[in-house]
Amino acid sequence: MPPPVTASLALPATGTLRSLLDQWVGNRRAEGGEALRSSDTGAMGRVALVGAGPGDPELLTLRAARLIGEADALVVDHLVSDGVLQFARRGAEMIYVGKEAGHHTLPQEEINRLLVRLAREGRRVVRLKGGDPFIFGRGGEELEELLEAGVPFEVVPGITAACGAGAYAGIPLTHRDYAQSVVFATGHRRAGESALDWDALARPHQTAVIYMGVGMLASHCAALVAHGRAASTPAALVENGTTPRQRLVVGTLDTLPAKAVEAGIRPPALLIVGEVVSLADKLAWFSPAGAAVQGA
Amino acid sequence: MPPPVTASLALPATGTLRSLLDQWVGNRRAEGGEALRSSDTGAMGRVALVGAGPGDPELLTLRAARLIGEADALVVDHLVSDGVLQFARRGAEMIYVGKEAGHHTLPQEEINRLLVRLAREGRRVVRLKGGDPFIFGRGGEELEELLEAGVPFEVVPGITAACGAGAYAGIPLTHRDYAQSVVFATGHRRAGESALDWDALARPHQTAVIYMGVGMLASHCAALVAHGRAASTPAALVENGTTPRQRLVVGTLDTLPAKAVEAGIRPPALLIVGEVVSLADKLAWFSPAGAAVQGA
Repeated sequence: MPPPVTASLALPATGTLRSLLDQWVGNRRAEGGEALRSSDTGAMGRVALVGAGPGDPELLTLRAARLIGEADALVVDHLVSDGVLQFARRGAEMIYVGKEAGHHTLPQEEINRLLVRLAREGRRVVRLKGGDPFIFGRGGEELEELLEAGVPFEVVPGITAACGAGAYAGIPLTHRDYAQSVVFATGHRRAGESALDWDALARPHQTAVIYMGVGMLASHCAALVAHGRAASTPAALVENGTTPRQRLVVGTLDTLPAKAVEAGIRPPALLIVGEVVSLADKLAWFSPAGAAVQGA
Repeated sequence: MPPPVTASLALPATGTLRSLLDQWVGNRRAEGGEALRSSDTGAMGRVALVGAGPGDPELLTLRAARLIGEADALVVDHLVSDGVLQFARRGAEMIYVGKEAGHHTLPQEEINRLLVRLAREGRRVVRLKGGDPFIFGRGGEELEELLEAGVPFEVVPGITAACGAGAYAGIPLTHRDYAQSVVFATGHRRAGESALDWDALARPHQTAVIYMGVGMLASHCAALVAHGRAASTPAALVENGTTPRQRLVVGTLDTLPAKAVEAGIRPPALLIVGEVVSLADKLAWFSPAGAAVQGA
């Protein structure tokens, strides 16, 4: 193991980040850069569909931070970390439409209507989603509604949970010796939807990441084995990835379900399957307070 | 099409980003947060393996911007956009080890040795890679070298090219109606390596993204059809995604190769295949100067 790096929750050395941004703004100005222009739509507001990243607020993009700070209203999903909302300006309206598995605070149709209504009131709206809005975020569906209503929009990608958890858990999602491709799927399905494509997820020389994979963990691991993955294939669960509450449980397709129960792993957690998981024992560098690499 | 949003190159409204960051730093201080601590390793420096994102410098994470600003030395890949380097402090050593297809300025082994040497000199090193360091970035390999040499490290994920290009081209990589999973592969292979797993990449109800897919585009499209994808499957190339030079060519597996030749698309470009590509015509919101949606 490398000497552990204690990275407390996203704390820039005081003043450092500010001076960086001073420099950024200054450089742009020196180049005669123009400010971001929104289209001239009269009284119509606009919506920015923004990825909030995987948890660590410092994994927010500069663009996301700026748009959050400029917003009149923020429509916020369940998986968005509180730290990210610190960028909102005082007086901005904060609307939580949190979706937990099986518990939609606001149905999707009402979220869509809410976004349209806020934009029609002339507001600059940020629609904030955990991770990346186009990876299991239903961002495309919301944009189609905005389009029909004639609301201008833009999209800001975010660090998706797989990339965040991989980086902080020391699991390279691709690696020339072990995995030439990586596939993302979600274990959280809508009622009546067809099952996951296990033949595709069980391919060799590939890393498979299953979002929201805790509830059906034993079933998922069994399905991967039934479709050709060896029971000894390394597999990991990353709970609350990139946050001070991150926990990592490492095992195999055979052993992981029992280990996860023993450790009491709960959503949100990500299942990572493939030979690259074996690197976590060596490469895990992030030591959140109270967390441990288990079962490695 | 929605009213186009003209997003010039990542230009925060002057002063806005600064005040945001002031607020951020102030809030953290008010909470009694401690500064990031590096492990106490005497004279040994450290390496941060940092994802620089897909091109737009404003898609850098706050954490990446901070570490770049704190670095004594930066070891920089070819695909890192210049805008990102503006965060480096004056006097930081900048070492380009750019890898273009078929033209490695510095062999991987020498890059590894360079990182170890810089760290042993006590420097804070940032190893900067385009996109995400764990997605086709060979980040894992470099960390294994650092580990063996006893060099402390950390990893900062970045917006991977697929997420950046998808967001800016209006192509949701997943969508409940069209794609329940997304797979990333790379068309840039090392000599003698086995071919791509076309059976896996050609699965239905899935979006396939092939990085570095221009050189072998016709061959890749033909392989997907040979392995079961309909020739009419929508497919897009995104050249220089998220930058002012972004160009988007939309077609099908059948028509895209000719369209790409006609448009003169060159690396770096990303191939996106799947029904979600059909949404680009409606959802493309980013209008870089001089670019056009072609062939939609």
